[in-house]
Amino acid sequence: MLFLALVLFLVTVLIGATGCASDSGQGGSDPLPAWNATPHTQSITEFVKRVTTADTPGFVPAEDRVAVFDNDGTLWPEAPDVFQLQFVLDELKRRTPGDPKLAADPMVQAALRGDLAALLAGKGHDGLLHVLALTHTGMTTDEFDDSVRTWLASAKHPRFDRPYDQLAYLPQLQLLNYLRDNGFRTYIVSGGGADFMRVFSQRVYGIAPEQVVGSTGTVEYELREGKPVLIKTADYVFVDDKAGKPAGIHQFIGRRPILAVGNSDGDQAMLEYTTIDNPHPSLGVLIHHTDAEREYAYDAHPPLSGKLVTALQEAGTAGWTVVDMKADWNKIFSS
Amino acid sequence: MLFLALVLFLVTVLIGATGCASDSGQGGSDPLPAWNATPHTQSITEFVKRVTTADTPGFVPAEDRVAVFDNDGTLWPEAPDVFQLQFVLDELKRRTPGDPKLAADPMVQAALRGDLAALLAGKGHDGLLHVLALTHTGMTTDEFDDSVRTWLASAKHPRFDRPYDQLAYLPQLQLLNYLRDNGFRTYIVSGGGADFMRVFSQRVYGIAPEQVVGSTGTVEYELREGKPVLIKTADYVFVDDKAGKPAGIHQFIGRRPILAVGNSDGDQAMLEYTTIDNPHPSLGVLIHHTDAEREYAYDAHPPLSGKLVTALQEAGTAGWTVVDMKADWNKIFSS
Repeated sequence: MLFLALVLFLVTVLIGATGCASDSGQGGSDPLPAWNATPHTQSITEFVKRVTTADTPGFVPAEDRVAVFDNDGTLWPEAPDVFQLQFVLDELKRRTPGDPKLAADPMVQAALRGDLAALLAGKGHDGLLHVLALTHTGMTTDEFDDSVRTWLASAKHPRFDRPYDQLAYLPQLQLLNYLRDNGFRTYIVSGGGADFMRVFSQRVYGIAPEQVVGSTGTVEYELREGKPVLIKTADYVFVDDKAGKPAGIHQFIGRRPILAVGNSDGDQAMLEYTTIDNPHPSLGVLIHHTDAEREYAYDAHPPLSGKLVTALQEAGTAGWTVVDMKADWNKIFSS
Repeated sequence: MLFLALVLFLVTVLIGATGCASDSGQGGSDPLPAWNATPHTQSITEFVKRVTTADTPGFVPAEDRVAVFDNDGTLWPEAPDVFQLQFVLDELKRRTPGDPKLAADPMVQAALRGDLAALLAGKGHDGLLHVLALTHTGMTTDEFDDSVRTWLASAKHPRFDRPYDQLAYLPQLQLLNYLRDNGFRTYIVSGGGADFMRVFSQRVYGIAPEQVVGSTGTVEYELREGKPVLIKTADYVFVDDKAGKPAGIHQFIGRRPILAVGNSDGDQAMLEYTTIDNPHPSLGVLIHHTDAEREYAYDAHPPLSGKLVTALQEAGTAGWTVVDMKADWNKIFSS
C-alpha cells in the first residue's frame, strides 16, 4: 500500500512538472491545467459538456460546433502596441536605409520617431493607413509572407524579451486544444490582417489558414514571367472589426458560432451575434486584462487599442463569462 | 472449391447490383462507377494515388490536399440559363403581383418577358445587376435563404422536369466522395453567389458552407428588435470569376489547391493558379460539354455563359485533363 501510494504521488508530481498528461485532453486528467478551478472556468467546461452530451436538449451536432476567437489581447498580448503595428514600424526601419523616397515620407518619419499621435490624427487615421499600405501592399503575397517570417525570426517584444510568436497565452492554447478535442472547429476572427496571421496561425495556435478570418485587402492575380502571382492592393479593404466581425463570420464561415471569445468592445458585435437569439446553446467569453504584474491591466484606458467598456457593461445582462486573467489563469505564457 | 467460387461470384454480383461497396472508396471496388475506364479518368485516379502514397516524392500531406470545383457547368448544368438566373426570374414573377412598384420597373419587365439581351446590354450589364440587386439585397440573410429554399422546393428545370437540386452530376458526386475518402478537402469556387449555394451545398454535394467560395456582397450587421441580423447589400461586390477565382481562393482558403476542376474560360485563371509553378504535384481538369443527347453540347457557343475556348487551347500545353462528358461519363444524373 505504501509503495502504491508512493507511485501515485510520483506520477502526480511528474504530470504536474511536465504537463504532458494534461495536454491530451483525454480521460480524467484536467484538460485546462493553466486555468484555476473558478466559476468562470467552470462556465466554459460546463458549456462544452452540455453541447457534447448526446441525447440531451443542449446537444449541438459537431458540424455546428464553431468557436471564434479574437486574436490581439485574446490569444496573445496587444501591448504596448498591437504586434502587427510593431511589424509595420520594424519594416519601415529595415527598409528606409536603402530607400531614400521612403525615408523622406513625412508619415514614415512620424512612425520612425514613434509619433503615433501623428499617424492616428484625423477621422480616417490617414497616416496609419498610409504606412500600412507601404508595408502591406504593392508586393506579392509570397513576398509579404517572407517579410512577416523574417520579422518573427528577428524581432523581440520590448518587455518580455522574446519573439512575438512565443507570447501566445498558455491557457488559451489549452482551451483551443480542449475545444478541438471536443469536436469544435476553432477560428480566429480578428481585426488583424488575415495574411499576417496566416503566416503563423497553424504553428502557434494549431489554426489552419482557412480558419483565419481577418482584415483583407483585394489581391490581383497575374502571370509574371509565366508564373501565377497575387499582388496585394488596398483597392478595397475589408475591416474585420466591430460590426465587421459578424459580417466576416457570415462571409467566410457561413454559419453562426456557438462560442465567441474576445477581450474588447471590438468583439461586442461578435459576442452578440453568437449568443443572442441563437437556436443552439451558446457562450460569450471576455478576457479581462487584470494582471499588471504578469501581463497588463487595462479596460477603459488601454495602451493603444483594446478598450473594454461597453462590452463589459453588456456582459452582465447577456450572461457572458468575464475571465479575470489574474484570478483565473495560474500561468500566462508557456515559459 | 465449387462452393467457394459460387460464393465469390454471388458477392461480386451483389456488390455490382447494389453499388454499396463502391460508395466507400475503400478496398478494390471502383470508387468512380459512373466514370468509364478512359485515360481521362485514369489521369485523375493516378493523380490521387500519387499524392496519397506515403514515402514517395509525389506525396502531399493531407493539410495541403485542397480540391476546388467550379459549380455551374462543372457540378450541375448551366443551361438553358445559369440556375441562379432562373431563380432571379422566378423570384420576380413571384413578387411582382403583390408589388406594383416592382411590376412597373422596366428591367423587371424585360426579365419577365425573357428579354435577356436587354438585361445584358451595356458594358456593365446594368440591367442584370439591377434585377440581381432586387432579388439578392435589401433583406436579411435568413430571409434570402428562405427565398432560395422556397424556390428549390417548387421550381423545376424546363428540360429535365425535376427540381434544380436533383441535377448534380453523378460522376462528380462520386469524385467529391472519392477525394474526401482520400483526405482531400473539397471546396466550391464559383462565380455564383456564396449565399445562394450555401443553402444546398451540404445537402447536395456534401460541401459545408465554410467550404463554399463564391461571389459576395457586403452584409451589414444590426440589432433589429434586439436580435442580430445581417442585411445583404451591394455596397461592395466581390465577383469570384476569372482572375477573381485565384483571389477568392487566397482570401478564403489561404493556400494553393492541388486539384482544380472547371468547365469554362472563367476557370482558366483558377487552373493556372493551381497547376503552374506549384511546389506540390497538381492537376487541372476541364469538363467539356459534348453530350447533346443526355445533357448539352457546347464550347465556343454556350447557351448563355460558360464559353470554353482559351482554356481549351491552354489545356494541351498545360497538361490539363479534358473530360469528354459523352465518352467519359456513363451516367450523367443520379436518376
